Amino acid sequence: MPDTKVYLLDGGTLVIDGYHAFWNRGPGGELRFPCYSVLIEHQDGRYIFDTGYDHDHVQRVLPFEKPLQTPEQTIPGQLAQLNLKPQDIDYVINSHYHFDHCGGNKYLTEACTLCHAKELEACECYQPFEHLGYSDLSFAPELQAKRDGAPAEPALDIYTPKFETVTGDQEIAKGLWLFETPGHTAGHYSLMVELANRRPMLFTADACYSQKNMDMMCISSFHLDPVASLQSMARLKELADKHDAELFYSHDPDSFPTYQKGSAFYS
Amino acid sequence: MPDTKVYLLDGGTLVIDGYHAFWNRGPGGELRFPCYSVLIEHQDGRYIFDTGYDHDHVQRVLPFEKPLQTPEQTIPGQLAQLNLKPQDIDYVINSHYHFDHCGGNKYLTEACTLCHAKELEACECYQPFEHLGYSDLSFAPELQAKRDGAPAEPALDIYTPKFETVTGDQEIAKGLWLFETPGHTAGHYSLMVELANRRPMLFTADACYSQKNMDMMCISSFHLDPVASLQSMARLKELADKHDAELFYSHDPDSFPTYQKGSAFYS
Repeated sequence: MPDTKVYLLDGGTLVIDGYHAFWNRGPGGELRFPCYSVLIEHQDGRYIFDTGYDHDHVQRVLPFEKPLQTPEQTIPGQLAQLNLKPQDIDYVINSHYHFDHCGGNKYLTEACTLCHAKELEACECYQPFEHLGYSDLSFAPELQAKRDGAPAEPALDIYTPKFETVTGDQEIAKGLWLFETPGHTAGHYSLMVELANRRPMLFTADACYSQKNMDMMCISSFHLDPVASLQSMARLKELADKHDAELFYSHDPDSFPTYQKGSAFYS
Repeated sequence: MPDTKVYLLDGGTLVIDGYHAFWNRGPGGELRFPCYSVLIEHQDGRYIFDTGYDHDHVQRVLPFEKPLQTPEQTIPGQLAQLNLKPQDIDYVINSHYHFDHCGGNKYLTEACTLCHAKELEACECYQPFEHLGYSDLSFAPELQAKRDGAPAEPALDIYTPKFETVTGDQEIAKGLWLFETPGHTAGHYSLMVELANRRPMLFTADACYSQKNMDMMCISSFHLDPVASLQSMARLKELADKHDAELFYSHDPDSFPTYQKGSAFYS
């Protein structure tokens, strides 16, 4: 039985304001941060946790986030570097459905898509202030059509994902743990991967953008419920302690350069 | 029976970032906005709704908000312009206990203090991210001492307010209505004053900083619960429609210059 391997797929960068990254703390000013996905080669199949943003979508809907993404930094581009095709991915897990975490879902046409049940609900009935967060529903053409007020008439060749929703903490495959970390969104999940040769990796996703957020116990300004967000950040700390896990942050310009990327992997 | 009169007491200005005033919308950059209190001369006594900020407190704890406040813009200074002394005030109503709405309470030593029951609780058990908001508890020395971890030993000459807590919507005196508008804080109240000779005045307090916030349906970045905040803003709109009331915003650099101030009054 082969060891589980974890690859980090570089997805380019975006710009937000310092007051977005550090709620009410700042300082203000442009902050460029990385986006990435996590590929897990597991005995049960290939999983991808989050799929980054779609450059065209951001350019069209949120150009002020100034996307910088090369063709190599798309999901197909990153997979190609590992001699994989999008069709080789069996499962997509989305921490949540903000545009910068699901933009590449649409390429993964053979995958079964896992998310928290509340997160799929949120795609249909988000709060007005979550409008931009949930702006890229291209991974779910029927939801997108409903949102746009158009009748759902997906062409036959449009990807229609097989959703599987989950609730609660779950070991979805041996050593792959989803932990509920709501607040940033209604149904946010973080992911822990247990490995044979090193400490577990605990991917916070947007429950904590960066080490600095954790050090300051400061959530991001993009949130549904700041009280829950703060509890989730505290929970991540406890989980890391309990499992002796290493925290990997979702948008950390300081930590990301130290992570292994490309064909290097964790196992 | 004399008509009810409403005076607006100018309390100086503060600076916040545009991302504070308009949550996640901005634009960023310094925004200087007014703070003011509302004096109501009513047949049942003199009421003050909110009491602005204390210059020394802001200078000490939040100097980055760059307070500009002349001696005439303090509560005693504003009352003196109306030939009143702080002791002439019978009731203080606090929309909530953020420092820029209760800084002058300490002068009003003869007043009975009204607030939402949840707001008084919040002073003792606020969220970590509300720390600066609830930083001026000088109006309640025993709470302040508890917060500071010091034993409560108020000197005999320290003002100890008579709190009366309220819940729900309440007509606290004829034509003086408190409406629950939570979200910005746990126990936030807005105030409507019915007058003999004009439309009712509906003071939003921090449930809506400005006309621009209302037009954009954009809450401020200082909040406990953004979903409730947005509902409260919608509620204010409905109340204004229902009662044909005029909305008076708490921190509106555009509207404030058009409000009557000083010895001019609404009746």
